[in-house]
Amino acid sequence: MSDLMAKAAKAKSSAQGLGVKTTEQKNAALHRIAEQLSSETEFIIAENKKDIESAKKKGFQTSLIDRLILNEQRIQDMADALKQQAELNDPIGDVLESWERPNGLTIDKVSVPLGVIGMIYEARPNVTVDAASLCLKTGNAVLLRGSSSAAHSNKALVDVIHRALEQSDLPADAVQLLEDNSRETASEMFKLNDYLDVLIPRGGKNLIKTVVEQSSVPVLETGSGNCHVFIDESADKQMAIDITVNAKTQRPSVCNAAETVVVHEAWAEKHLPELVQALKEHDVDVRGDDKAQAIVDNLTPATEEDWATEFLDTIIAVKIVSGVQEAIEHINQYGTSHSEAIVTESDDNMLAFFNNVDAAALYHNASTRFTDGFEFGFGAEIGISTQKLHARGPMGLPALTSTKYIIRGKGQIKA
Amino acid sequence: MSDLMAKAAKAKSSAQGLGVKTTEQKNAALHRIAEQLSSETEFIIAENKKDIESAKKKGFQTSLIDRLILNEQRIQDMADALKQQAELNDPIGDVLESWERPNGLTIDKVSVPLGVIGMIYEARPNVTVDAASLCLKTGNAVLLRGSSSAAHSNKALVDVIHRALEQSDLPADAVQLLEDNSRETASEMFKLNDYLDVLIPRGGKNLIKTVVEQSSVPVLETGSGNCHVFIDESADKQMAIDITVNAKTQRPSVCNAAETVVVHEAWAEKHLPELVQALKEHDVDVRGDDKAQAIVDNLTPATEEDWATEFLDTIIAVKIVSGVQEAIEHINQYGTSHSEAIVTESDDNMLAFFNNVDAAALYHNASTRFTDGFEFGFGAEIGISTQKLHARGPMGLPALTSTKYIIRGKGQIKA
Repeated sequence: MSDLMAKAAKAKSSAQGLGVKTTEQKNAALHRIAEQLSSETEFIIAENKKDIESAKKKGFQTSLIDRLILNEQRIQDMADALKQQAELNDPIGDVLESWERPNGLTIDKVSVPLGVIGMIYEARPNVTVDAASLCLKTGNAVLLRGSSSAAHSNKALVDVIHRALEQSDLPADAVQLLEDNSRETASEMFKLNDYLDVLIPRGGKNLIKTVVEQSSVPVLETGSGNCHVFIDESADKQMAIDITVNAKTQRPSVCNAAETVVVHEAWAEKHLPELVQALKEHDVDVRGDDKAQAIVDNLTPATEEDWATEFLDTIIAVKIVSGVQEAIEHINQYGTSHSEAIVTESDDNMLAFFNNVDAAALYHNASTRFTDGFEFGFGAEIGISTQKLHARGPMGLPALTSTKYIIRGKGQIKA
Repeated sequence: MSDLMAKAAKAKSSAQGLGVKTTEQKNAALHRIAEQLSSETEFIIAENKKDIESAKKKGFQTSLIDRLILNEQRIQDMADALKQQAELNDPIGDVLESWERPNGLTIDKVSVPLGVIGMIYEARPNVTVDAASLCLKTGNAVLLRGSSSAAHSNKALVDVIHRALEQSDLPADAVQLLEDNSRETASEMFKLNDYLDVLIPRGGKNLIKTVVEQSSVPVLETGSGNCHVFIDESADKQMAIDITVNAKTQRPSVCNAAETVVVHEAWAEKHLPELVQALKEHDVDVRGDDKAQAIVDNLTPATEEDWATEFLDTIIAVKIVSGVQEAIEHINQYGTSHSEAIVTESDDNMLAFFNNVDAAALYHNASTRFTDGFEFGFGAEIGISTQKLHARGPMGLPALTSTKYIIRGKGQIKA
């Protein structure tokens, strides 16, 4: 049996017992893992060094190597995150709905774990611990497929998790790490419908695209955000500038950062120069359409491609529109249905925007940067779903649950 | 542009406007379609005759031809179903959750349509109307891909729907029927992630398997049910026999019919002959394991394959077990997580069964045949989901919805 099949089978067989562990048992295990991470910090760092050295030899970019590094502080941060997750509400075992039928049957809809979650991710060893703990908290087994560049770090972390779980009431088999990181194994994993209830890719665009295109296991798609701020005619000048600058520059590399500012022509006539000035003070490359260029000198011309691009960088495109309707059309045409903001003092236009823009998160007079499980108050984040099935927008622990119906009778049969 | 791309684009562009139609507008459109179906009954029957004649020429089975037939009564049934759907609660536009963050942002989670639903189905023209109406009721556009054997019937029905919609407030483009029924077109449809939010296959096992395996568009999987009745030691004799006979014979060809009866050895010693007798009176082929054969003479021996088979016929396998634990293991190993019943007077064993059997619907002292959107009181059924993401078990109208977050601020930016 292959490494993949053996581990998938172990994960599946452990899932059943795991699903009925109590909140106390699950939280105790998370605390146990946190302690084990702290007490085995040296071992983890030593194993991590092997990955770092090999990455340096292969000439990896500094930013990639930085993501790989595990030091005392980062291991402590992981342990702290585990303790925080232990404090969160357990979403398993809740009776979500309950009713009685005319024939006397009572029906309860109860929240249960998904079962076995497959996680495919890039060279960030912190995802190993984060994914394992979120799955355990929700009673799910997990099959982890990390990157070969983090192989030693991931193995060390999962070894530590196993040693902790062996001292807990949870089955150690519930956390499985693939050691075969070949493409063939990933492709096999995409087809494991009999073992995996969902696949969650975490990482860059290409990884997610590959999983979505090739997996027959249901996927929770996360990822790209081509987000907009629409500044309406009645928008408060300073608020609009502050929100646009924040949405663009507070952290340009993330999916909820803004990529295009759509501006009402009347507002633009009065205030666009000041907005552009504020963006340039943050070193933003501002690219404008013809109308924007007519208002502000020396703008880089925006191309058709710019409207559809998630720059993930200090670049912003400026589109001038005649009103909220044209703004909505532009956003629905080029956006990725992630996070979209309107700055306006008009309730009518706010409602038109809310009703007609198709996105996971719609903002009135606030920055798009708040689309995030922590900012929403979920206390944890599995990712930000960009699909409409199962979960949309920031996903907290309930995204890792399913339901079952419990029907109680007194001998009812169907007539 | 291909027929597929042109129609997918029309469906997508109509979805936006459709999503914000009022409940009254949607219900009026359903009534309008019902009236149009009645008034165009002759036209529909004439077009349907072309499919019937061609099916007869091709030597189709009588049962397949029966499914194809549209007569006055069946068209009236469709119209009645539409009127009933108009009465159902509209699941769109509900504020599902609402909270405020410490920074003053208020967040509403609101139910919205999925967008565009792709429906792939076999030669049952009634699905054309049913799928269209359920989608319209939930504000979704739909792209229908039926069978070439029902091409004239489907086209007639969609023409009628279009003529009705043109007299309504809903866009006629919201219902699109593919006229190119080639395999190539189906394969293209599987990859239309930019146009379709979900694909729902309705039909036999092979159709569903193909869609699950090949589609990169998220799929709502429905289908197979290898369901069990477990008769525990303390089960009431007559109740156990009635439930088993009902679950097996009331309609053997459907997914919620039982395929194996798992029997506690102590109950079997006393009552198995009577259970087998009752099943044989309903012409059921009873196949037993070694222990069952030792209790009842002349049983067909059950094979390993029988445990895993969804007979969809008057065949049942009998497995004797030593207790609830072995029953749970057997069911989790061979079942398809659809519907599973325990007949027992023991609350402990009922709870063990509820907690440890992994299935969409778990029954205590009732027949598995109740797993059905209508029996659950949903008033409509999209299908019975056998996956754990998005929806599990019988799916009513809410299965055709997604959510969006509406966030209201006063200029908040991220620190």
